Amino acid sequence: MLGGYAGKILDVDLETGELKDKMPDEEILRRYIGGKGLGLKLIYDEFRDDMQPFDPDNLLVFSTGPATGARVPTSGRFHVLTSKSPLTGAVGSGNSGGKWGPYLKFAGYDAIVIRGISEKPVYLTIIDGKAELVEAPEIWGMTVPAVTEELLNRAGTDPKKTSIACIGPAGENLSLISCIMNDEYRAAGRTGSGAVMGSKKLKAIVVSGNQRQKSANPEMLAEKVAESMSLIRENPVTGPKGGLHVYGTAVLVNIVNAHGAYSSRNFQQSYFPEADEQSGEKLAESYLTGTTGCWGCPIVCGRKSFVPDGPFSVKYTEGPEYETIFALGSNCGVKELDAVIKANHFCNEFGIDTISMGGTIACAMELVEKGKIPEEKLLGFNLRFGDPGAMVECVWRAAYKAGFGADLALGSRKLAEKYQAPEYAINVKGMELPAYDPRPIQGIGLEYATSNRGGDHVYGYTIPSELLGIPEKRDPYSTEGKPEWTIFMQDLGSVINSSVICLFTSFALGLPQYAGMLQAITGMELDPEKLLKIGERITNLERHMNNRYGFNRVQDALPKRLTAEPTPAGPSRGQVSHVPEMIDKYYELRGWIDGVPTEEKLKELGIA
Amino acid sequence: MLGGYAGKILDVDLETGELKDKMPDEEILRRYIGGKGLGLKLIYDEFRDDMQPFDPDNLLVFSTGPATGARVPTSGRFHVLTSKSPLTGAVGSGNSGGKWGPYLKFAGYDAIVIRGISEKPVYLTIIDGKAELVEAPEIWGMTVPAVTEELLNRAGTDPKKTSIACIGPAGENLSLISCIMNDEYRAAGRTGSGAVMGSKKLKAIVVSGNQRQKSANPEMLAEKVAESMSLIRENPVTGPKGGLHVYGTAVLVNIVNAHGAYSSRNFQQSYFPEADEQSGEKLAESYLTGTTGCWGCPIVCGRKSFVPDGPFSVKYTEGPEYETIFALGSNCGVKELDAVIKANHFCNEFGIDTISMGGTIACAMELVEKGKIPEEKLLGFNLRFGDPGAMVECVWRAAYKAGFGADLALGSRKLAEKYQAPEYAINVKGMELPAYDPRPIQGIGLEYATSNRGGDHVYGYTIPSELLGIPEKRDPYSTEGKPEWTIFMQDLGSVINSSVICLFTSFALGLPQYAGMLQAITGMELDPEKLLKIGERITNLERHMNNRYGFNRVQDALPKRLTAEPTPAGPSRGQVSHVPEMIDKYYELRGWIDGVPTEEKLKELGIA
Repeated sequence: MLGGYAGKILDVDLETGELKDKMPDEEILRRYIGGKGLGLKLIYDEFRDDMQPFDPDNLLVFSTGPATGARVPTSGRFHVLTSKSPLTGAVGSGNSGGKWGPYLKFAGYDAIVIRGISEKPVYLTIIDGKAELVEAPEIWGMTVPAVTEELLNRAGTDPKKTSIACIGPAGENLSLISCIMNDEYRAAGRTGSGAVMGSKKLKAIVVSGNQRQKSANPEMLAEKVAESMSLIRENPVTGPKGGLHVYGTAVLVNIVNAHGAYSSRNFQQSYFPEADEQSGEKLAESYLTGTTGCWGCPIVCGRKSFVPDGPFSVKYTEGPEYETIFALGSNCGVKELDAVIKANHFCNEFGIDTISMGGTIACAMELVEKGKIPEEKLLGFNLRFGDPGAMVECVWRAAYKAGFGADLALGSRKLAEKYQAPEYAINVKGMELPAYDPRPIQGIGLEYATSNRGGDHVYGYTIPSELLGIPEKRDPYSTEGKPEWTIFMQDLGSVINSSVICLFTSFALGLPQYAGMLQAITGMELDPEKLLKIGERITNLERHMNNRYGFNRVQDALPKRLTAEPTPAGPSRGQVSHVPEMIDKYYELRGWIDGVPTEEKLKELGIA
Repeated sequence: MLGGYAGKILDVDLETGELKDKMPDEEILRRYIGGKGLGLKLIYDEFRDDMQPFDPDNLLVFSTGPATGARVPTSGRFHVLTSKSPLTGAVGSGNSGGKWGPYLKFAGYDAIVIRGISEKPVYLTIIDGKAELVEAPEIWGMTVPAVTEELLNRAGTDPKKTSIACIGPAGENLSLISCIMNDEYRAAGRTGSGAVMGSKKLKAIVVSGNQRQKSANPEMLAEKVAESMSLIRENPVTGPKGGLHVYGTAVLVNIVNAHGAYSSRNFQQSYFPEADEQSGEKLAESYLTGTTGCWGCPIVCGRKSFVPDGPFSVKYTEGPEYETIFALGSNCGVKELDAVIKANHFCNEFGIDTISMGGTIACAMELVEKGKIPEEKLLGFNLRFGDPGAMVECVWRAAYKAGFGADLALGSRKLAEKYQAPEYAINVKGMELPAYDPRPIQGIGLEYATSNRGGDHVYGYTIPSELLGIPEKRDPYSTEGKPEWTIFMQDLGSVINSSVICLFTSFALGLPQYAGMLQAITGMELDPEKLLKIGERITNLERHMNNRYGFNRVQDALPKRLTAEPTPAGPSRGQVSHVPEMIDKYYELRGWIDGVPTEEKLKELGIA
């Protein structure tokens, strides 16, 4: 048996109510590690080309990796996958921190596979190795904090050793931009997984237990962890005086804006003159009450915050993250950080992905601005760029499909299609774009275009290199070497999300450290090359499934605005994304033809 | 056949889907007129002492009267009744304007009796005499304006001759303070009828038709109408230069505050220093876009309004009424009229009674102020007197039972009971009190205490006499003659709500005018005395049913705050309500013992 794993996968059939333990195949773990890789393989084993998002056999998989809950830095994460995302139509995928991942392992399981649709609302508890489904129509409709409090009370276990993952009203109401929340403020945010969980009538999963996993080589692990901890502590980004700890991810607002890559007003601009008013510095100055970190994390980038007064008052909350400030702030033309904090709080409370929410609001605002949405469809709602109240109102309206909120719950692509103006949905594969304008940062544009889950930045995070010079500087304006770097970061991302470790360690660590720690935990013979090959396998397996859904070169593209409309102002004025010029090189390096891995490539990677 | 009636009652069984026409008994019409009286009799015929609000046989009755849709002033109204109110436990009752009432009659029916619970969401259409139930799960969840627009489109009839009554999300979610809306902005607001309609899974009733009813004596009617029209036009309140038309009902804000009867902060005060900022004058100055009236109304007290900017922006809406400004404004300590307009808009959009909503928010704010609600129950929500943002947030939270909103959806009495502090719920029989502090206005306090539907002001509206000297001045501080006057106004109110005519005509008209117009329409021999006897019969029938539910003297009481805590400041400083000293005289005059009509009284009125 490999070290670091709990050794069991829980199989839940919500239609029959049957719960089964499966033993994970050691060969699969060697080839896919855990987390995202393991989840993809579990989904692939039951794959169906004509799957629909709300079909009973659309699997919902929660998975941890050997590093989850192990004594390594940032071991508090887990991965969520769905066979088919209701937002993108591709495989659905998200990653989250907090403590739910390690607590699932301490409860005795590496992963949970959920199938079927329950007739009545249920929740799942896994306590000390014992899993149980509980019928609970009375908790349906509860917000994330309310159901978290309720189920913590019901569990009767030590609340410090218990964790809840759940959906909010947005997931129940099948909003396509809903997410799965855990520990109240943590989110597996993207691709609408909340709606899949909602369609299954599964409200929450409670985990608690004391089963710690043994590592294969404790001495080696101690040594490798010590090395990694030193690197993290000494690093200017991840260390105790680093930007992430001092200002949270919001430290990026001023940095990215100074580069002219902090998009505004639905990517009509790539620069936001009022960025300083919503920066990490401003957050620390006016709204911060403390910091918070995920389980086992030495970086501690989480923010505790509040808004003491005014129309956006909130007594206590967590966040907002950099991405959220962009999405709900700048991208909506909203400068007021208090409104962003309030809207972020609502996203957490109701279970909505903040990036997709902001991108959808921005899209709606532009559709109104351009006269594409007739006034009577807004039913009195005054929706305009730069209006903080309207932005905040959009969030709860989307969660409850209240009036125009029913349109917002569709996400930007379906919203813009409804009003015959798809060009205003700034998305890739239906998923709203993150907080780096791809026009002045060529590598991240290629990641947006090619990422398997749609408009994503963290599954191939080129930003440290392109903007911060970590581990080495790559000119953001240049396309030179970007296909290579994007591919490397994507496959590294697959490794990180399968381990599961936090992406932010990659500011300080590299493949040698990841390989060393994983080898010490599991006992697998690993080196950087072998590990990266696993990453490539994982990336290709996900791509392969998407191909079978019908995805190919056509979907590997940015919205026209980003390749045809030069940035109009700011430090990066006059730039467009050159994805169309990089994509063939990218495919060639990947061993893909028109976005589809060749049979040789699949064979080489051992994908059937 | 009597004139003025359509001559048919529609009986709808939602369980079986069966629709039947019933002919109204002429003797019943002679004894109960129509509207409230007719509805009460229909409910009484199937009365059950142990009825529960969400039982299938809790009848929901919509009823018009002979004046509805007739060529008399203010003939645009109808009445709604439920056998048992989920808010009060008494008979549920509300009255509304707009055009739905006359359009129901033009569609061929005097009333609709709805029984049973539909398995799936449905709506009812009555078009040109043909009634149909339509299964429509897809409209469940829609807001009031959204479903109104949708069903107007589906009807395919002339939208100017079509009208929709419906519930919003609050009614669907069984909020105890939900109402039934019609014509988007009109409400049969009180006693939680929206929840009864919601429990039956009936989303809306569409009415359209061209069947005008004939009056018994058209010449006499023309003469009587001309007389009433002159009186209305010449009256300083109802005329074209009168306060109601020029400033809407909000004209009362400054008048009532000047008397020290404009309660504030959950009736902790009876005076609001900032009242001028939310007055009818302020509304006209800053937020008004036009006026609007119900069908057949020469007074036109309705307001069209907007909030152009700021966090409470709304592009177009109607209202707010005086009661709403008090309830959501002053009573919550909120001075900002823009926030009140926004909250009023949400109440209309989601189908919530504004008076009960404001009273419940005020109660919650005081429970927080007094430390009765533990902070963790608020889940980060910053709920405080005087906070306009928090007040507005309460409304949509209550509609969707979002977080703490689930508590707000209970109404003030059940909310305060949940937190073991019932003394902070300022209600009578579970219904929140309206906008006249009863401490410096003795008559209205007696109406609040004795009204059959709970804390009500319009079923026995003593205010014109006590505050405005119409038809003659009665000293508001004095108890002298108040039992007599309250009884008279209650029985007159029963007549008005059964005719159905607008209460506001009573500023200008009296029993001779009502009797004359009703006689001309119906052909019944009527005079003031006979008509008032009918009113007494109606008041007593409702009282009798409530007695059978267990109501008696105990429930005919004001909250202790109003009888024991003298008004602390303002023009009326030092006053308490003297209801306990007036109640025995009231009962004696009524022919009741401890709140229960004697057998003699019931016999005298012909109530079995």
